[in-house]
Amino acid sequence: MKIDVKKTAQLLENHNNIIILVHSNPDGDTLGCGYALLRALRKLGKKAEVLRPENVSKKYNYLFDDLGKEDFTPEYVVSVDVADIKLLEKDAREKYGDKINLAIDHHPSNCVESEYLLLEDTAAAACEIIYKVIDEMNVAFDKKIADCLYTGITTDTGCFRYSNTTSQTYMMAAKLVEHGADGPLINRIMFETKTKSYVILEKLVMDTLEMHFDGRCALVHLDYDMYEKSGSDESETDPIASKTRQIEGVCVGIFLREKEDGSFKISLRTLEEVNASEVCRKLDGGGHARAAGCQCDGPFENAKEKILAAVGEYLK
Amino acid sequence: MKIDVKKTAQLLENHNNIIILVHSNPDGDTLGCGYALLRALRKLGKKAEVLRPENVSKKYNYLFDDLGKEDFTPEYVVSVDVADIKLLEKDAREKYGDKINLAIDHHPSNCVESEYLLLEDTAAAACEIIYKVIDEMNVAFDKKIADCLYTGITTDTGCFRYSNTTSQTYMMAAKLVEHGADGPLINRIMFETKTKSYVILEKLVMDTLEMHFDGRCALVHLDYDMYEKSGSDESETDPIASKTRQIEGVCVGIFLREKEDGSFKISLRTLEEVNASEVCRKLDGGGHARAAGCQCDGPFENAKEKILAAVGEYLK
Repeated sequence: MKIDVKKTAQLLENHNNIIILVHSNPDGDTLGCGYALLRALRKLGKKAEVLRPENVSKKYNYLFDDLGKEDFTPEYVVSVDVADIKLLEKDAREKYGDKINLAIDHHPSNCVESEYLLLEDTAAAACEIIYKVIDEMNVAFDKKIADCLYTGITTDTGCFRYSNTTSQTYMMAAKLVEHGADGPLINRIMFETKTKSYVILEKLVMDTLEMHFDGRCALVHLDYDMYEKSGSDESETDPIASKTRQIEGVCVGIFLREKEDGSFKISLRTLEEVNASEVCRKLDGGGHARAAGCQCDGPFENAKEKILAAVGEYLK
Repeated sequence: MKIDVKKTAQLLENHNNIIILVHSNPDGDTLGCGYALLRALRKLGKKAEVLRPENVSKKYNYLFDDLGKEDFTPEYVVSVDVADIKLLEKDAREKYGDKINLAIDHHPSNCVESEYLLLEDTAAAACEIIYKVIDEMNVAFDKKIADCLYTGITTDTGCFRYSNTTSQTYMMAAKLVEHGADGPLINRIMFETKTKSYVILEKLVMDTLEMHFDGRCALVHLDYDMYEKSGSDESETDPIASKTRQIEGVCVGIFLREKEDGSFKISLRTLEEVNASEVCRKLDGGGHARAAGCQCDGPFENAKEKILAAVGEYLK
């Protein structure tokens, strides 16, 4: 049942022992939502915990490193920024996948079968929705909540750069900075600081650059053994996805990541001319208009052929 | 005489045939100020012109390419984002340097000897001040004015990333986007679009990465023949300078560019721990606390030894 911000706030106020689910390979938006909501609920005297996935990049530590653990039997299950229960970690999916009481999300493709759904697909970040929910619950924004929400907003907009950025996005950033969010520091951590291993990995991946469709499409791929060569791991690979789209004349950037089992995770980044979500749906994936993803069997040549064929339908 | 926004608006309303001066090597802020103000003054029925320097990068064309030229004898001279008349182009300096009626600026170091000065040194961009002046003159913001002001704000804050970004900055961005500023497109033009040749050049340069002083200093260099290999040229090299400083644990990033004569142009980027300007002064260079430069004779090993010795005094 679709509900609004007001009803969402009421539901949260009327429940306790709340477990919050975030998506796997967690990014700044899902984690920012999770920990902002956890902090707000605890400020209301409730018990709340985020079910944190295994491979959270260390750069997100500041979102939760001051928080103690709370033991309780979960009575209410909330998912944040999760478009599909397939995107939960295995454990979370098996335990809570069919027991989600409330889903809060901004993905138009949301298909979580929850009791209640708060979906605002014009929000650039799910954190924009959590902002409104916290405000509606009359919880005072503190520096930590502001840092969490700012993190989601800046990461999902590429530091206010992507076309999903609206007037509301800037307005909320203004208020979060007033509440103490350290925008410059968060942006430096999210966008500027690169590990040595990441720099090497990025170089290895960019060396595979191929241009297709008269230079309108750029494609790079990551071989699994590049993790060993660089000392890096999958948690560091996300920023590479947007590199190819930034090349002059390119309107579709493709990044193929080989997984341990030899299959490929494919990320698409596009300009207005091509809807990334539509392309990826052809390969049973999905996402947003400018950023989407899908999976494909290996080897590389197979995955590449499939995604180029799908892209080709929109570039011809 | 120091004045406020209200008095500034009155002065502009009471004059006509206004010439606007911007600084040489113009950036998004000085040009954004100039053309936003020109557009606002013309909307008030006045004649106004920006004295445009020679070498304006093509990427700024959208700020003025719809504007016709107006011929008039200047009666009132306004400088925007100009901290010192030394920063005017020679022609502008000789003709108007000692005749500036009104200076509008955000540099704390402003030393322009103008009749009136509107200085707000907490503004991240001079465009934030022009925003207030236009608002005070009751000129309706249109899309073109909004694009000009947004351009100044985003370029002077590194897309809302630098520590000068305040709540006011985000609030103005919110309003400018409401007035039609195309933030995503402007940010893409200003920060994202990379030529194919630049991507290749960056890869070649990053392949030379060396770490020094226990990983606190990263150094890369550009051999002159890399221009030929990549199809790039010196005008594209600036963004590389900040790449090394972004590596985790690095507080001094060094970029050595070989010049045609075999000597090296050295760029330093630092975090708070090291004052880049002090280091570069040791080699007769200079600049800002976080970004500075100097020159050194070749060959590469000589230039490298000199700059590392200078950096070493601050890292030991």
